[in-house]
Amino acid sequence: MSERYQQYFSANRDHHLNELKELLAIPSISALSEHKGDMQRASQWIADSLKKAGMDNVQIMPTKGHPVVYGEWLKAEGKPTVLIYGHYDVQPVDPMELWDSPPFEAVIRDEKIYARGSSDDKGQVLMHIKALEAILHNEGTLPLNFKFCIEGEEEIASPHLAEFVEEHKDLLAANVLVISDTPMLEKGRPAICTGLRGLCGLQIDVKGAKSDLHSGLYGGAVQNPIHALVHILDTMRNPDGQITVEGFYDKVVPVSESEREEYRALGIDEERIRQELGVPAFFGEKGYSLLERTWIRPTLEINGIYGGFQGEGIKTVLPAEAHAKVTCRLVPDQNPDEILELIRKHVEKHTPPGVTVSVSFFDRGRPFSTPIDHPAIQAAGRAYEKVYGVPVAYNRMGGSIPVVETMGRILDTPVVLMGFALPSENFHAPNEHFHLENFDKGLLTLCEYWFELERSLS
Amino acid sequence: MSERYQQYFSANRDHHLNELKELLAIPSISALSEHKGDMQRASQWIADSLKKAGMDNVQIMPTKGHPVVYGEWLKAEGKPTVLIYGHYDVQPVDPMELWDSPPFEAVIRDEKIYARGSSDDKGQVLMHIKALEAILHNEGTLPLNFKFCIEGEEEIASPHLAEFVEEHKDLLAANVLVISDTPMLEKGRPAICTGLRGLCGLQIDVKGAKSDLHSGLYGGAVQNPIHALVHILDTMRNPDGQITVEGFYDKVVPVSESEREEYRALGIDEERIRQELGVPAFFGEKGYSLLERTWIRPTLEINGIYGGFQGEGIKTVLPAEAHAKVTCRLVPDQNPDEILELIRKHVEKHTPPGVTVSVSFFDRGRPFSTPIDHPAIQAAGRAYEKVYGVPVAYNRMGGSIPVVETMGRILDTPVVLMGFALPSENFHAPNEHFHLENFDKGLLTLCEYWFELERSLS
Repeated sequence: MSERYQQYFSANRDHHLNELKELLAIPSISALSEHKGDMQRASQWIADSLKKAGMDNVQIMPTKGHPVVYGEWLKAEGKPTVLIYGHYDVQPVDPMELWDSPPFEAVIRDEKIYARGSSDDKGQVLMHIKALEAILHNEGTLPLNFKFCIEGEEEIASPHLAEFVEEHKDLLAANVLVISDTPMLEKGRPAICTGLRGLCGLQIDVKGAKSDLHSGLYGGAVQNPIHALVHILDTMRNPDGQITVEGFYDKVVPVSESEREEYRALGIDEERIRQELGVPAFFGEKGYSLLERTWIRPTLEINGIYGGFQGEGIKTVLPAEAHAKVTCRLVPDQNPDEILELIRKHVEKHTPPGVTVSVSFFDRGRPFSTPIDHPAIQAAGRAYEKVYGVPVAYNRMGGSIPVVETMGRILDTPVVLMGFALPSENFHAPNEHFHLENFDKGLLTLCEYWFELERSLS
Repeated sequence: MSERYQQYFSANRDHHLNELKELLAIPSISALSEHKGDMQRASQWIADSLKKAGMDNVQIMPTKGHPVVYGEWLKAEGKPTVLIYGHYDVQPVDPMELWDSPPFEAVIRDEKIYARGSSDDKGQVLMHIKALEAILHNEGTLPLNFKFCIEGEEEIASPHLAEFVEEHKDLLAANVLVISDTPMLEKGRPAICTGLRGLCGLQIDVKGAKSDLHSGLYGGAVQNPIHALVHILDTMRNPDGQITVEGFYDKVVPVSESEREEYRALGIDEERIRQELGVPAFFGEKGYSLLERTWIRPTLEINGIYGGFQGEGIKTVLPAEAHAKVTCRLVPDQNPDEILELIRKHVEKHTPPGVTVSVSFFDRGRPFSTPIDHPAIQAAGRAYEKVYGVPVAYNRMGGSIPVVETMGRILDTPVVLMGFALPSENFHAPNEHFHLENFDKGLLTLCEYWFELERSLS
C-alpha cells in the first residue's frame, strides 16, 4: 500500500500543512483564563476537522473545565475498536522574547514547523485525523472501528478527564488506546513507550521544643528536630541505593530479561550524559543500569529539606522544627496509597525520642506499562519499521503522566504510546517545533499501523 | 570582721547606690557607634571611681575599639595578686516599648534596681571597687595585691581583648583572675561557675549536578545531594546520643564523681524544665543527667539545614545542592581546631559517591574550667557560705564566653567566676534589674573573699 499513500500524502502535503497552520494559529492555552474563547475555537476546529475526515457523531462535550471533542467511525462490523487520545490545548509561551518567530504564527524553516503546539500535541492530533481521512479516501472504509477523545486540559494535569472517562465509559469503550504524545528516541529512531512511572508525595514535619532554644543552654539535652529528621530520612535508603522502607519493593513486577536486553541494545552514551549533567559519577540502585534505574525501578527522593538557620555564618540555635518533602516514582504494580502508608509507618518506627513527627500526603499517580510483546505494541513496531527502515526502540519514561494509566485502567484497554516528536523539539519551551520528516513518515506509519493492527487482532 | 563591714556598708548604702545610678545613667552601648562618646564617659567614670577607691596607676588604655580601664594596688608586698575583670559596656535596649521605666534612668522598686547594665555588669563592677574601698578605709591596707581590667567590648564578643591582654601580659600578670558576670543558681543560692563550654562551627555544602534536575527523568540514577547530606549528618551521632566522629571524645577530661555528686545535690526539677520547653521527653547522651549533658559533655548540633524545594506542596525536583550548619559545644581539653579537623575528615569519609562536598570553618572558642578543689575556688565558696548562710553551688554553664578562657590561658591563671546576679534578672532584655539583697550581700562576700583568699594562698 505504501506507494499509493506516499503519493496521496505528497499531493495533499501543502493542504495538510495549511490546515496545521490554521490550528496552530489558535492560542489555546488552557492555563490562562483569558484564552477561554480560544479553547472554544480550537475545540470547534478539531470537531470540524473530524467531520471533514468522515467521522460520525462528532460532539464537543462539556466538562467542568475545557470541553472534550469526541468523534467516531464504527462501521467496521465485528472488528476491534481503537480509541485515539490527544489534546488540543497548549502550554503558555513565556518568555516571549526568546521566540525567533511569533508562537501562534507558524512558519516553516529548514523543514521544521515552528509554533506553540506544533509537536505537543496539535501536529500529532492532526496526523491521526489525516491518516484516517486518507484511508477512507483511498479505501472507502477503515480496517477497524475508531473513536477520538481529544481533550483541552492535558497541559494543566487533566483535572476533569478521569471523571469524564468514568461518566462516558460506554461511549469510549475500546480494545486499544493509542496516544501520540511521547518522543522518539532521536532523529531517525522511532520509539514506543511501554511504561511510565507513577508518583506519590509526602511531607514530614518534625517538632521539638515550643520555640527555638539556645544551643549553649540546652544543646545535648533536648532532641534536635534536624537530627531527628536526618536520621528518619537516612534510614530510608542503604549504601547500595536500595530503598529500605519495609515492603517498598513487594509489588514491583520484575521486568523480563528480554526487555532489559532491549534497553542495553539502545546503546545509550552514559559518559556523554554524565558530562552534560555535571555529576562526578552516577549513583543508583545496585545491579541496574542508568536506563533501568530511571525507567523500570522505583525511587524515593528528598525534594526539599529545611529547618533552623539558613543565613550567612553560624547561629547557635537548636531549632524547634524541621521539614522535608519526599516523592517516590513508582513502577507496576506499586500502589501510591499503599506506598505512602508504608512510608508513614517507616517514619513512625524510626522517629527518635524527644520529638513529635507528622506526615502529610500529597499527589498520587499510578504507574503504567504495556508488555512489549502485546500484539498492539508489536503491530506498531512493525508499522514504524516499514516506514523508517529501522527497528523500533521499546523504551519507557521515568516521568509520570497519570492520565495514561487512568484512562487505560478505567476503560480496561492496553495503551500504545507511539509518538513522532523528537526530544529536542522544545516542548513547553520557546521555539517549539516539529520536524516535517516525522509529519510525513508519521502519516504513513499510522496508516500502516491500522492495517497491521487489524491483522494482529483478528 | 563581718559586723564592722555590715555597719560600714549600711552607713554608705545610699551613697553607693547613688554612684551606681550615676554609672547606669551613661548609655554605654558598645554595639552602636553613636554611643562612642558615652563609652568615653563610662570609661572615665570607672577610672575616677578606681582612683577614689585608692587604686594607683589608673589608666584609660586605648584598643582598636573601645578602651580598657586599668588600675592597681600593689602594696601588699610578697602577697599574691588578684586580677579583677569586668565590663562597663551594655547591650542595646530595643524593644524600648517593653521597658517599664527608661533604661538609663535607674529606679529602685521592690528592693531591685532597674536599668540597663544594673546586673550585667556595671552593678557587679562597682561592687568590686566599693569592696576594696571599704577594706582600705577600714584596715588602711589590702590583704592581697589587686589589678583591675574593665573592658568596653564584652557585649560585642571582646574583639580586641585577646590582643590587649597579649600586649600587656606583664602589666596584667596575676595569680588569680576573678570575674563577676555569671548568675547565681537562684534567689538565696549563690553559685561559683567552674566551667564554660567552648565552641566551634562549620558549614557543609554538598553539590550534585550542574543544575536542578527533573526527578522523573533522573531520579534514581543521580545522587541526590540532600540524601548525601542527611547520610553524612546521620553518621555523626548514634541512637544513644553519642557523637560518632572519630576522636571526638579523645581529649575530654573525665569529670570527677564528687563533682557529678555536687550536680545531683542541686536538685534540679527536670519535669518543670521539660514542661517549660514543651518537649515530649529529654534526649541526650546515655549515662548523663540533664545538667551533665549541658555542662560537662560536648555536643554536636545541626543548627540549620536547607536544600531543594521549600514552598507549599510538592515539587518533583532533584536539587543540585544542599547545605547544613553545625556547631559543637566543647569541654576541656577539646581543642576547637582539632575538632573541626576531625569533623572535616568524618565528612570526607562518609561522603557517598556522586557528589562533591566542601566544609568551611567558622567561630572557634576554647572550653574552660577551674577544678572545684582549687584553693581560690574553695575560698570563694567559704566566703559565700559565711554571708549567705548556705553552701555554695558549684555549677557550670553550657554556653561559651571565649574571653574567660582566653584571659586565663594568656595570663596562665586560674579563673574564679563568682557572680551575684540572678538568672531571672533580664540580662540583654527589657527591664534588666539587680536585686539589692545581692548588692548588699555581694559586697560583704567580696570582702570576706579577699581575706579568705589571702589565708588559703599563703
